[in-house]
Amino acid sequence: MSLGIVFLSEVFGTAMLTLLGCGVVANVALRGTKGNSGGFLMVTWGWGIAVFSGVFVAAKSGAHLNPAVTLGLLVNGKAEYAPGVKVDVASTLTYFGAELLGAFLGAVVCWLAYKQHFDDEPAQASKLGVFSTGPAIRSNPWNLITEIIGTFVLVFVILTLGGTPSGLGPLAVALLVVGIGVSLGGPTGYAINPARDLGPRIAHALLPIKGKGSSDWAYSWIPVVGPLVGGALGGIMARVVPIIVTAAS
Amino acid sequence: MSLGIVFLSEVFGTAMLTLLGCGVVANVALRGTKGNSGGFLMVTWGWGIAVFSGVFVAAKSGAHLNPAVTLGLLVNGKAEYAPGVKVDVASTLTYFGAELLGAFLGAVVCWLAYKQHFDDEPAQASKLGVFSTGPAIRSNPWNLITEIIGTFVLVFVILTLGGTPSGLGPLAVALLVVGIGVSLGGPTGYAINPARDLGPRIAHALLPIKGKGSSDWAYSWIPVVGPLVGGALGGIMARVVPIIVTAAS
Amino acid sequence: MSLGIVFLSEVFGTAMLTLLGCGVVANVALRGTKGNSGGFLMVTWGWGIAVFSGVFVAAKSGAHLNPAVTLGLLVNGKAEYAPGVKVDVASTLTYFGAELLGAFLGAVVCWLAYKQHFDDEPAQASKLGVFSTGPAIRSNPWNLITEIIGTFVLVFVILTLGGTPSGLGPLAVALLVVGIGVSLGGPTGYAINPARDLGPRIAHALLPIKGKGSSDWAYSWIPVVGPLVGGALGGIMARVVPIIVTAAS
Amino acid sequence: MSLGIVFLSEVFGTAMLTLLGCGVVANVALRGTKGNSGGFLMVTWGWGIAVFSGVFVAAKSGAHLNPAVTLGLLVNGKAEYAPGVKVDVASTLTYFGAELLGAFLGAVVCWLAYKQHFDDEPAQASKLGVFSTGPAIRSNPWNLITEIIGTFVLVFVILTLGGTPSGLGPLAVALLVVGIGVSLGGPTGYAINPARDLGPRIAHALLPIKGKGSSDWAYSWIPVVGPLVGGALGGIMARVVPIIVTAAS
Repeated sequence: MSLGIVFLSEVFGTAMLTLLGCGVVANVALRGTKGNSGGFLMVTWGWGIAVFSGVFVAAKSGAHLNPAVTLGLLVNGKAEYAPGVKVDVASTLTYFGAELLGAFLGAVVCWLAYKQHFDDEPAQASKLGVFSTGPAIRSNPWNLITEIIGTFVLVFVILTLGGTPSGLGPLAVALLVVGIGVSLGGPTGYAINPARDLGPRIAHALLPIKGKGSSDWAYSWIPVVGPLVGGALGGIMARVVPIIVTAAS
Repeated sequence: MSLGIVFLSEVFGTAMLTLLGCGVVANVALRGTKGNSGGFLMVTWGWGIAVFSGVFVAAKSGAHLNPAVTLGLLVNGKAEYAPGVKVDVASTLTYFGAELLGAFLGAVVCWLAYKQHFDDEPAQASKLGVFSTGPAIRSNPWNLITEIIGTFVLVFVILTLGGTPSGLGPLAVALLVVGIGVSLGGPTGYAINPARDLGPRIAHALLPIKGKGSSDWAYSWIPVVGPLVGGALGGIMARVVPIIVTAAS
Repeated sequence: MSLGIVFLSEVFGTAMLTLLGCGVVANVALRGTKGNSGGFLMVTWGWGIAVFSGVFVAAKSGAHLNPAVTLGLLVNGKAEYAPGVKVDVASTLTYFGAELLGAFLGAVVCWLAYKQHFDDEPAQASKLGVFSTGPAIRSNPWNLITEIIGTFVLVFVILTLGGTPSGLGPLAVALLVVGIGVSLGGPTGYAINPARDLGPRIAHALLPIKGKGSSDWAYSWIPVVGPLVGGALGGIMARVVPIIVTAAS
Repeated sequence: MSLGIVFLSEVFGTAMLTLLGCGVVANVALRGTKGNSGGFLMVTWGWGIAVFSGVFVAAKSGAHLNPAVTLGLLVNGKAEYAPGVKVDVASTLTYFGAELLGAFLGAVVCWLAYKQHFDDEPAQASKLGVFSTGPAIRSNPWNLITEIIGTFVLVFVILTLGGTPSGLGPLAVALLVVGIGVSLGGPTGYAINPARDLGPRIAHALLPIKGKGSSDWAYSWIPVVGPLVGGALGGIMARVVPIIVTAAS
């Protein structure tokens, strides 16, 4: 498969991810929507199905949709990112770039879908919250730890899912993401994906959103670095465990 | 397969869709029901399982249940709407007519199931809301854009689902509809289906519903035109992407 | 298969159904529980998974768990209720008896699980509501119609599910029951099963529940007759449709 | 398979179970989290997906994750706990030890993920509730009965699931756990697993949690003994039923 196809596939898939994912936050958080105050469980289902939909759309390229997943596969020592896509510098950068661009584009479309409610919403924090995550209690080290743990779970379990019966495949990942959300999303809003957070944050900064306020760049590195560290740890752990197992056999 | 069977199948399936779909709105919105104020997440699950049930009922005819899906398949260039059903003017009109009639009939049965609660409910808007969608903030262009985006996601992902493992099939579509609801249903209540909105609106206009008020015909064209445009765009996109992919290979 | 096995299987399966089903109502309705006021969506998931669990437990006997399903299969003209179980008077009565006994026993165990909360709950209606359904607005004809419609959907779609991919099987029925609950459960609390309502009502009448009040026998025939009529209609419809289809082909 | 691998697998799986399971309680119960007051349904989904994730992680060793399941398999008379793992004293103790250690470790990581919210939460009961279960109304015999019933359902249905289509496998167990939670979790918070309760309780006792208060050791034996009794009963029942069935055939 050419890297152009990989790029296109991941752009579409990650755009679907943030369109639906940012969308559910908009529905819950912005004034006057039909799903206003719909609750955290609804948000987590929204993101879960956002992943589900994005996985189908980007199936051709392995549906990483997330630089932390790409990095996890890299450090895991996989030979291919997807059938026919070798792991090398060019393919890695293609995934990273496509994921970031897709996440940006999905957030732009989400803004269009909720344009009137963005205009009508007075709270700046609610508007930024549609695009990017923010901590419940701000603290660089603890917020980082929470993001590392959440992304470790994501990547470690996804790599473990390799032997899953295929009929459940995308649903398994969707449920996992719902689970990480309800269980580990409390302190930081579970970015667990650098592209999902940074792409929409760039969209927030660039779009002419009425009364939008700060894009909170001071926090922006945490949902990038945390997920990359967590993803790498997940990939390493998923590599080390079978080695130990083989040694113990 | 004869078009008579297609007609029957789609009538039954779409009736099941609006019976259960309008039903969950009645349960949440009408006074005195057991599920009153059950929340938006419950509404989206109700519509998701409504699609799920309708897909099983209308499996023979491909379970379009939605003119936007039929149109999406048409512009996608499919040769058949379902195994043995050629794409032509007659079959297209058969689908459109059956979907509209089924959606009408399902809404009538829903009204019977909730008859006492319709009688007991004082708010006209709540009654109409059981049948048809309405915007949170009225604006023709923006409401149209939201419906186009939502239906684009529906049709594009359904067409992408073609290669899904069949064990998940109808569940995948159901989850997608739940996802579109929670994520993109905030501004307009996600008609994403001209028949689902127009059929019940006609039922609302014709049925002797106590104290029913206006059927809001001024808005009625948006959940028809928006989904048709979105469905066509979804069908085109799902056609163009593989062409680009082939060219890039 | 001997009718003794059928009896045992259906008793166990239907007991699992009402243990978990009545349990979720107890959790939501009785004072001081952890899930108090958990909402209608939680109730519907509880009943859905109750069916799911019961279907696995009673798989050997086809997992009817419901006289309306048994009757639906009968009028549908099936030759067997389950592999090796012929449709005749003896087997029909075996299913009916086992379903009723199982539903009774499950409700007794549910009462034991929630014994302290039954003791602590002051409202008689809340206690009866754990065992049996009651109408939101009392009206014999309309309550009957609602139960007929709900059970028609249940039996008609289950019979349609015959050709479902087996990997989803019990989950499909569970989701259908969730859907009927959220969509058609508003007016009467969706008995859609004579045994599920009558068995626990008998348990309510016989058990020494502290301050329990009336078992509301005046209403008790509606969730028996309605589901039987609805199930028979579902079975007939599922029989007639293929005949029409064959004639039309 | 060596017992070392079994140990490692169950430690990882059970750690995943309590990390996500305790996590969802932290998210709902601790002050200032994003999912605060998210409701009981969210808690049950969190635990359900916690089991789901743990099952994938520990698939190699049969994913018991629960001494009550191990005991249920033992009394059921199985020859193997997992492919290649004979049932004997050494393997049984390996499962028990790994489950307890894993449950302890997962709770420690959960505490790290929610560290700031533990610091910020004033209520001691809320902190302990993240780690271990407690009764809504304290009564040794009734609390014990509720835990026995819940765990009986868990183990009996899991053993019945043996013949389940594999595509649904881990999802079936997850849904069952959601169902037990919503339906039987009301009186005691459904430990239904001695390791899940005792491991995190030890963590609560050992960790330097700010203002943590008592670990409630007076109650601690109930969520150990109840699940073991319930699991044994489930294993026996699942053994006896087929014997009766064979005799009756």
